[in-house]
Amino acid sequence: MSVGEFSGMSVEAAIDLAARKYGNRGKWGSDDHVGTANYITPDKIRAAAALVRTGRAFSLAFPFDASGPQTGQFGRINPLHSMTFTGSDCAVGSLPLPHGIGFADDHVTMPLQCGTQWDALSHAFDRNEMWNGYPCTEVSSFGARKCGVEHLAARLTSRGVLLDVARMKGLDALPEGYAITEDDLERTIVRQGANAAVGCGDIVVVRTGQLGVRRAAGWGDFAGGPAPGLSFSTLGWLHRTRIAAVATDTWGVEVRPNEWPGAFQPFHQVAIPHIGLILGEMWQVDALAADCASAGVWEFLLVAQPLPVTGAVGSPVNPIAIR
Amino acid sequence: MSVGEFSGMSVEAAIDLAARKYGNRGKWGSDDHVGTANYITPDKIRAAAALVRTGRAFSLAFPFDASGPQTGQFGRINPLHSMTFTGSDCAVGSLPLPHGIGFADDHVTMPLQCGTQWDALSHAFDRNEMWNGYPCTEVSSFGARKCGVEHLAARLTSRGVLLDVARMKGLDALPEGYAITEDDLERTIVRQGANAAVGCGDIVVVRTGQLGVRRAAGWGDFAGGPAPGLSFSTLGWLHRTRIAAVATDTWGVEVRPNEWPGAFQPFHQVAIPHIGLILGEMWQVDALAADCASAGVWEFLLVAQPLPVTGAVGSPVNPIAIR
Amino acid sequence: MSVGEFSGMSVEAAIDLAARKYGNRGKWGSDDHVGTANYITPDKIRAAAALVRTGRAFSLAFPFDASGPQTGQFGRINPLHSMTFTGSDCAVGSLPLPHGIGFADDHVTMPLQCGTQWDALSHAFDRNEMWNGYPCTEVSSFGARKCGVEHLAARLTSRGVLLDVARMKGLDALPEGYAITEDDLERTIVRQGANAAVGCGDIVVVRTGQLGVRRAAGWGDFAGGPAPGLSFSTLGWLHRTRIAAVATDTWGVEVRPNEWPGAFQPFHQVAIPHIGLILGEMWQVDALAADCASAGVWEFLLVAQPLPVTGAVGSPVNPIAIR
Amino acid sequence: MSVGEFSGMSVEAAIDLAARKYGNRGKWGSDDHVGTANYITPDKIRAAAALVRTGRAFSLAFPFDASGPQTGQFGRINPLHSMTFTGSDCAVGSLPLPHGIGFADDHVTMPLQCGTQWDALSHAFDRNEMWNGYPCTEVSSFGARKCGVEHLAARLTSRGVLLDVARMKGLDALPEGYAITEDDLERTIVRQGANAAVGCGDIVVVRTGQLGVRRAAGWGDFAGGPAPGLSFSTLGWLHRTRIAAVATDTWGVEVRPNEWPGAFQPFHQVAIPHIGLILGEMWQVDALAADCASAGVWEFLLVAQPLPVTGAVGSPVNPIAIR
Repeated sequence: MSVGEFSGMSVEAAIDLAARKYGNRGKWGSDDHVGTANYITPDKIRAAAALVRTGRAFSLAFPFDASGPQTGQFGRINPLHSMTFTGSDCAVGSLPLPHGIGFADDHVTMPLQCGTQWDALSHAFDRNEMWNGYPCTEVSSFGARKCGVEHLAARLTSRGVLLDVARMKGLDALPEGYAITEDDLERTIVRQGANAAVGCGDIVVVRTGQLGVRRAAGWGDFAGGPAPGLSFSTLGWLHRTRIAAVATDTWGVEVRPNEWPGAFQPFHQVAIPHIGLILGEMWQVDALAADCASAGVWEFLLVAQPLPVTGAVGSPVNPIAIR
Repeated sequence: MSVGEFSGMSVEAAIDLAARKYGNRGKWGSDDHVGTANYITPDKIRAAAALVRTGRAFSLAFPFDASGPQTGQFGRINPLHSMTFTGSDCAVGSLPLPHGIGFADDHVTMPLQCGTQWDALSHAFDRNEMWNGYPCTEVSSFGARKCGVEHLAARLTSRGVLLDVARMKGLDALPEGYAITEDDLERTIVRQGANAAVGCGDIVVVRTGQLGVRRAAGWGDFAGGPAPGLSFSTLGWLHRTRIAAVATDTWGVEVRPNEWPGAFQPFHQVAIPHIGLILGEMWQVDALAADCASAGVWEFLLVAQPLPVTGAVGSPVNPIAIR
Repeated sequence: MSVGEFSGMSVEAAIDLAARKYGNRGKWGSDDHVGTANYITPDKIRAAAALVRTGRAFSLAFPFDASGPQTGQFGRINPLHSMTFTGSDCAVGSLPLPHGIGFADDHVTMPLQCGTQWDALSHAFDRNEMWNGYPCTEVSSFGARKCGVEHLAARLTSRGVLLDVARMKGLDALPEGYAITEDDLERTIVRQGANAAVGCGDIVVVRTGQLGVRRAAGWGDFAGGPAPGLSFSTLGWLHRTRIAAVATDTWGVEVRPNEWPGAFQPFHQVAIPHIGLILGEMWQVDALAADCASAGVWEFLLVAQPLPVTGAVGSPVNPIAIR
Repeated sequence: MSVGEFSGMSVEAAIDLAARKYGNRGKWGSDDHVGTANYITPDKIRAAAALVRTGRAFSLAFPFDASGPQTGQFGRINPLHSMTFTGSDCAVGSLPLPHGIGFADDHVTMPLQCGTQWDALSHAFDRNEMWNGYPCTEVSSFGARKCGVEHLAARLTSRGVLLDVARMKGLDALPEGYAITEDDLERTIVRQGANAAVGCGDIVVVRTGQLGVRRAAGWGDFAGGPAPGLSFSTLGWLHRTRIAAVATDTWGVEVRPNEWPGAFQPFHQVAIPHIGLILGEMWQVDALAADCASAGVWEFLLVAQPLPVTGAVGSPVNPIAIR
């Protein structure tokens, strides 16, 4: 197994080393809740808005409904959408309203991370510590007292850059288990051109192709199963580039099976609690990627605000990329 | 009672007249799902992006949590946020994961219109007809087969204009029951200046001040009770200006009590099923309004995409205004 | 295909004939909500209580949890049990209570018919008519205004009789698709002996063995798939014996695939809206059956009260059989 | 303040003393999950069944619906009943089924202790210990690994005895804050007569009258507010009589405000984790009480099985009393 600078190390040692080398705790003060989202400044947003050339807007979410990838594993089901009252009720006269007005209303029961989503920094812990060193006990049954997703409400608008690693490799989708390396990312940037360069405050969207293939072919074990994804060894790059967030079109950003036998999401264990990096998962980027490819432009204004559910450790999101 | 051109008419007659004069059915073809959102074009979005001067981003949602305004009326409760597992579980060793990683996860049960929201065009009917003339039976317990909110997924980014009617009147909040007239809207524009002019494809945000006052003072009967809001008589203006959407900081956009005794939301009965107008409710705009006032700039890029819940008749939204 | 007296008929004709011959509409007045549950009288309950000889009590429900048979089909998921707060929270000090007291609390989201259950008479319709001729529109999104399960709150205690058809046939479980006939029921009674005789007001529990086999082997398509069950031709027997209810250890009481190609639950279409027969589904009866077999006693006190959810069309139930 | 043998003690000291004197830990082995429910034997059940004289059955649950007493406090809402599909849908042709069959289906979201209920022994802790000394961490977000309510599935059928303390005092309802003493209980038994004597394995139902009064008059602060209820000083009696369970027609069994200033449910802190006593709350007993009073008979067969939700710390229940 080659995991770059972490090769030959145990997963525990690798996590410790990565946390020491790339950790950002304290960088934004002792009461920070948003980590690398701090890299996004008004100037950054202004510059991002200036990227809009065609006015074409792309939704990067797939539908929130019963056809989603969830299986109940880890308690995650697909959204359960229910009507409170309906047009059927109106048509048969069961809605007692005057002058011919009628209404339909509805509600939903859903895991906050069942579809296209953001992880809040309260989502993952390293040995009972959260981002910035907060104890994980700040996330109780009453929600997250630190790093709840509401802190990100107005913080996730920035320049987006799509790195289409699958396209760079000439594949519809990277193979499951394929670990995307720093070299892959850099080669994708080179191949895509100067406007794909990654810098401070960017939201980087990495395309593996997996979500599109699986949505079409049947999800199978998409949720939690094997997937292409970022190698643990990219943590240095992610830290060094000072990006605000990274999102992928896979269930869990990092490669699966993970790069150490028996491990479970070790990349998360450093990225979230130590780097304070905002992770996006299950983004649907195929249409955007095709448009970017045909234009040769890989940067755009990205507005990907979460729903501010107080104390939530994640949020569904409908990211809008505007070129 | 003075309701402009509708004065002296029964509510039924007024609805009929307004529907005939201002209806847009068929304007965007026989298979349209988004009505006035069609006014938003790529050119419009491009121009809207060019409005970003400072890069300051404002969230126009208030928190989605148990402190919201809902009382259970009409089946609407406040969001019920539950943890699937927690940091508490991690700390006591109840999450059986390797190498010290821990996670928290959560889910929510919520009416789609319990907080800051959009109405989809499938939300309201006039005598069993939906927008574009679709039968209301297209909205059954299985969701909306026409005009579901998913059709708006990438359609609600545009130029936003804030019309601060309360400020124009010199009030913290308009009185409950105050019907905002076309004249109020036009005088607000004049007072605010040329950059507040309203045009085709705009998303108009009307500030009454009510939401801010009630959040601070206790919601009371905010949901469904008396409120300032648009007069039925503004339907002509809303149609004529060809705006894409209108949103307010009240429960239901239109003035309450409604302008005819015993009526229930007659403005909705024309605006949604006939004009195809997208309505936003319970937007929190006080911070944005203060910023606009101090800058003397009332226009901005507004990105207010719904969550694409398939077949839903509305959606929570966290609108982002970027100046 | 042999369906007894209905052989050679179309499913529509069979339904019509069965409804005419065996319908009970009006029998208990024009405002009845409980149909054959009316056969249970205080005298019947008193006699049922007198059947208790050993004091052994059996629960006939299988666990309500994520391991259940539901797949999401027809909108039915397995119960989603969530903690409101936990012992984990107490242990880490997140529950701010005095003098060392701690609590855990929880909630559930579940279809009312996801596990061991009763159908209320508002659950099934024949050409838009409910039991007693009520229009099906009495069941709107606001629940059942007629025949809600709450009317059965105190009505489902009676003599229970177990008819172990699988055991009579010498099988662990009847084959899928096997249609249990009147002759099978009568032969089971004869084989089991005089105490298995069925009479007015009894709750008859028919054992096919399927639930036990599937729980052990993996549910597969248990919910809605092929199953042994009552033949359409047993409707006459069910009517004539004046039983209060019939329950099985299958998903849907009647044989599946149904006895006419392309049909869907035609037995239900007569049993519920015309006979007013209370149906129980997914009862777990193997332990009771073994006990009955070893004692040679097939009758018992059965207390199977539903949860009185107002306006519900069904209810989970934990039936208790006491011998 | 007089709290019998605990008078003059701090609440902590009183809890310690009561736990030492009346604790049952270990009495039923090291793997027990049901505490005093062990007192119910087959012989006890047989004798209870023999109490049935008239065959009249009473439901002791009040309706599970939006009209319930919950306010959201402690995360407890009233049941949210939703239709999955309806008769309205059938009437307008939205349910694509053959030969005229139609169905309605529904689901519910509810706290397990929002209405008439049982506490499981996993519901309350004393200094992080559960019944039998299990650590409270056995109740995590994944549910109760010890003392889940499923263990009580077949265990709560027994002789019921109604002690109508309100009637004994000549009141419609005991005053809020009234602490029922051992003397009150004994005097009620004496007044009611020999058939009200309480013994090993009984389920004792104490009537204060509060639930009936509040349901009629508006719940107000019924959930968690002031109430009549058992004095802390009755713990000795409850232990000595070896009853299987005690239930009341109040929110929380014990008197509120609690008998020490600033305390919170100290009776629970001993009764559940130390005595292993099963507590029932919000039972509706007025109709049964009237019947008992007119007959002069206060004992009955009580069948009060919970719904076996795996790992749940409580359960809704529809207790059936049969006289």
